[in-house]
Amino acid sequence: MKLEIKKKLADKWFSDLQILICEEFLKLEKNLSSKPKKFRKRLWQKTKKNEGGGLSCTLEGGKVFDKVGVNKSTVKGIFEKKFRKTILGASKNGKYWASGISVVAHMKNPKIPAIHFNTRFIVTSKEWFGGGIDVTPCIQDNKEKKEFHNKLKKICLKNKKNYKKYKKWCDKYFYLPHRKETRGIGGIFFDYEKKDWEKNFNFVRDLGIGFIEISKKIILKKIKSKWSLKEKEIQLLKRGRYIEFNLLYDRGTKFGLNSGGNVESILMSLPPTAKWR
Amino acid sequence: MKLEIKKKLADKWFSDLQILICEEFLKLEKNLSSKPKKFRKRLWQKTKKNEGGGLSCTLEGGKVFDKVGVNKSTVKGIFEKKFRKTILGASKNGKYWASGISVVAHMKNPKIPAIHFNTRFIVTSKEWFGGGIDVTPCIQDNKEKKEFHNKLKKICLKNKKNYKKYKKWCDKYFYLPHRKETRGIGGIFFDYEKKDWEKNFNFVRDLGIGFIEISKKIILKKIKSKWSLKEKEIQLLKRGRYIEFNLLYDRGTKFGLNSGGNVESILMSLPPTAKWR
Repeated sequence: MKLEIKKKLADKWFSDLQILICEEFLKLEKNLSSKPKKFRKRLWQKTKKNEGGGLSCTLEGGKVFDKVGVNKSTVKGIFEKKFRKTILGASKNGKYWASGISVVAHMKNPKIPAIHFNTRFIVTSKEWFGGGIDVTPCIQDNKEKKEFHNKLKKICLKNKKNYKKYKKWCDKYFYLPHRKETRGIGGIFFDYEKKDWEKNFNFVRDLGIGFIEISKKIILKKIKSKWSLKEKEIQLLKRGRYIEFNLLYDRGTKFGLNSGGNVESILMSLPPTAKWR
Repeated sequence: MKLEIKKKLADKWFSDLQILICEEFLKLEKNLSSKPKKFRKRLWQKTKKNEGGGLSCTLEGGKVFDKVGVNKSTVKGIFEKKFRKTILGASKNGKYWASGISVVAHMKNPKIPAIHFNTRFIVTSKEWFGGGIDVTPCIQDNKEKKEFHNKLKKICLKNKKNYKKYKKWCDKYFYLPHRKETRGIGGIFFDYEKKDWEKNFNFVRDLGIGFIEISKKIILKKIKSKWSLKEKEIQLLKRGRYIEFNLLYDRGTKFGLNSGGNVESILMSLPPTAKWR
């Protein structure tokens, strides 16, 4: 398949998925409210030089979501020299094209974990897919954890992907060395998937749909369960760790901020409120 | 003067100043409460290998302070190889000794700015003083700003220090490039003060006392002024920026976390609560 067609297909998929996710999340809000909060949508452009941009959808202060951001962007450009060596295939001339979707959901109910999902297609002198899903509870739930990992395992199996490897990668990536803690209960993380574009694209689409199913299942199970202020306090402290990870270590955040991306979209991963003790 | 005596004097001064600051801050709390919150004191050791440690004093949930941390530490050790080139005089063998005090005060009243102060004496194959004071209001007050800078100017003048240079350094250091914002209204920042130990030590002591005077003046002026929830909201959003700066850019934070320092003391600079929109 020609590269231009791959780019179009990937870009279109991420856009379609974004709409789908926003619709499904809005339905969840409608479960709890007859006048649900709406997604605020903002289009942004990377530069005035026709280097692409994105659509940022955020819902705040909902009955289900304290804050959820669903971002899709497709950008291109030339990496600054100092970053080139850190990006696969960019060391020669720094040219890149990147499209992706990323979602971070911070729940109102502290019994429901925060959920993060991202998939992307990146083109430099190489081309590859990357992405993942991971879950950050603040109150332990072993059954939920097991079901979550089983679902991911199934999606990987169906697509002949190495679930174990992706799981390990996730645990390693979402780790806070200064706290000697993992961010949450893991999930999967993958990058540099280059071989067999169509197979990878199928996997990425399955993961997008899987993310919706996983989120709905996790959320609906506890959507009406009661919680205490003490549990909310635990959640706010856990969110502090989330912020520490995202600002101190996350590659995406650092990359975005250093390459002049849209600040609001990059930092939409930060929870609406957090605490430190 | 022998290096060992310099170390002892610096270490002793930072300890004395810590006690003084805690006493003065407690007096401020007593202004507003007959049963004031107390400082929680924690001693910590860097390692089991006699590499020093510190005393962390934190007061939370007060009538004046939402959270204030007053930390003093004196540590030594050997820098990891990859950090050595980033530290003056450490490239040869990585040996260091460092003593310092650092204070971050996040106020309950959003009309009163957050105040940060730090002074340190560092010994590698070189030896130098560094430090600074800076102020982060969330509601503009030009008179307060002018008085604050005038006081710093006076302290610098008295000690024949280049106020303008230090002020510029501060503005440059406390800058959030991704937001294109300064953290606050600046102050002074200095580092690598090597020449004339006694003169520098005098300056560092004057700055410590000056910090207490500045803080008291700023706080007492507004300690009883009313504030609205809207102003509190502005403060919480401003604190989000504070966190972004400290986790994304602050040299001290990065250095501390990467060199196995005491996590609680390093991150005591983070406000107790913050918001992102």
